[in-house]
Amino acid sequence: MGKIILLRHGESQWNLENRFTGWTDVDLSDRGRMEAAEAGRKIAAAGLEPAYFFTSYLRRAIHTLQIAAAEMDRDWVPVVKDWHLNERHYGALQGLNKADTAARYGDEQVHIWRRSYDVEPPALEKNDSRNPANEARYATLTDDELPLTESLKTTIERVRPCWEELIAPAVRLYGTVLVAAHGNSLRALAMMLLHLSPEEVMKLEIPTGSPWLMETDAHLNVVKNYYL
Amino acid sequence: MGKIILLRHGESQWNLENRFTGWTDVDLSDRGRMEAAEAGRKIAAAGLEPAYFFTSYLRRAIHTLQIAAAEMDRDWVPVVKDWHLNERHYGALQGLNKADTAARYGDEQVHIWRRSYDVEPPALEKNDSRNPANEARYATLTDDELPLTESLKTTIERVRPCWEELIAPAVRLYGTVLVAAHGNSLRALAMMLLHLSPEEVMKLEIPTGSPWLMETDAHLNVVKNYYL
Repeated sequence: MGKIILLRHGESQWNLENRFTGWTDVDLSDRGRMEAAEAGRKIAAAGLEPAYFFTSYLRRAIHTLQIAAAEMDRDWVPVVKDWHLNERHYGALQGLNKADTAARYGDEQVHIWRRSYDVEPPALEKNDSRNPANEARYATLTDDELPLTESLKTTIERVRPCWEELIAPAVRLYGTVLVAAHGNSLRALAMMLLHLSPEEVMKLEIPTGSPWLMETDAHLNVVKNYYL
Repeated sequence: MGKIILLRHGESQWNLENRFTGWTDVDLSDRGRMEAAEAGRKIAAAGLEPAYFFTSYLRRAIHTLQIAAAEMDRDWVPVVKDWHLNERHYGALQGLNKADTAARYGDEQVHIWRRSYDVEPPALEKNDSRNPANEARYATLTDDELPLTESLKTTIERVRPCWEELIAPAVRLYGTVLVAAHGNSLRALAMMLLHLSPEEVMKLEIPTGSPWLMETDAHLNVVKNYYL
């Protein structure tokens, strides 16, 4: 019987400013840090003892995990950081205020980018300073791996190997794991675990800082899921 | 050419209270957190980009690493946590105030325990609540692996496999690594890297929060070492 705890990072600086964040590496706000601590206390209070932690390459998720782990008295638990768990890449929209974006592209277009399953926002140009290839942390990845924009669909496709090759084997070996990540990478995990349709996953809103527990049988079929 | 940065954790709550800490999992003091941030800034200012982090199972070292990594903008770097990098186990002295210990065992005896190479303090009884076997983090280790007390010599012996099997291969593969650990586990690494005698390692005092850089040739011989 496995237990997979999905935890969306707490509020970030750019959530506050209502900007498209994507792979931009902004930090938690003070409120985000409080949400992370509260999440850790809920996990501990539920008697859960995750034996493996997973997170993305982005500090708002990494710090959420570190703060929650400290509250659980589980700082020592091994952590896997994987860029496959990063937020959806928002292409040329990254850094733009959502109101400005609507003014520039029109409300309807922005709604399509945010709410459709397989439509990608405009891609970054290769020479854009926001191209992840410019960052040390992605330096060993190939052009094929690194996105310049993503739809929800392509986000889910790149989360899949992290689930299959890292997280699922850890659940089988260790029983309980915690994944601290982002709205869309967690949607990807929820879609795979709960066999959601594209329509269902698009409607799925995962609240920040609320541990979502998936209880599975021995074959990793989810038998019960609820927020702590 | 490898670069190994040794970083002793910042001041802890029990350093403040002058108690024997050993494997007791106390946290950093506010000053310790400031020391960790300053260490991170020094490493970044020196242009060093550690590609792998190593730390112990104890939160004062783990938090030192997390705080320093955030200052370096390197939260995403992989971390290996290994109990072999824990502080020397101080046996039955753990938790005692150093003045009380002197009153109970005599100044001379305490001096011998603290300053000798191969004399162990009194061991914990198996049923002592401080026995690490009682803690979840050590639950998978054997009785042979888990100490009930340690001399500097036995500490060095258990650090050795971590150097040989984890840290040295990472230096060969990645070039620059950072080890955030404890006074005595870092003495062990310094002894191996600098070929110190027992007399030399006993006299070695590594300051808290001061990154100590070892520059090596291609065969991991240290060619230069200095504090940043």
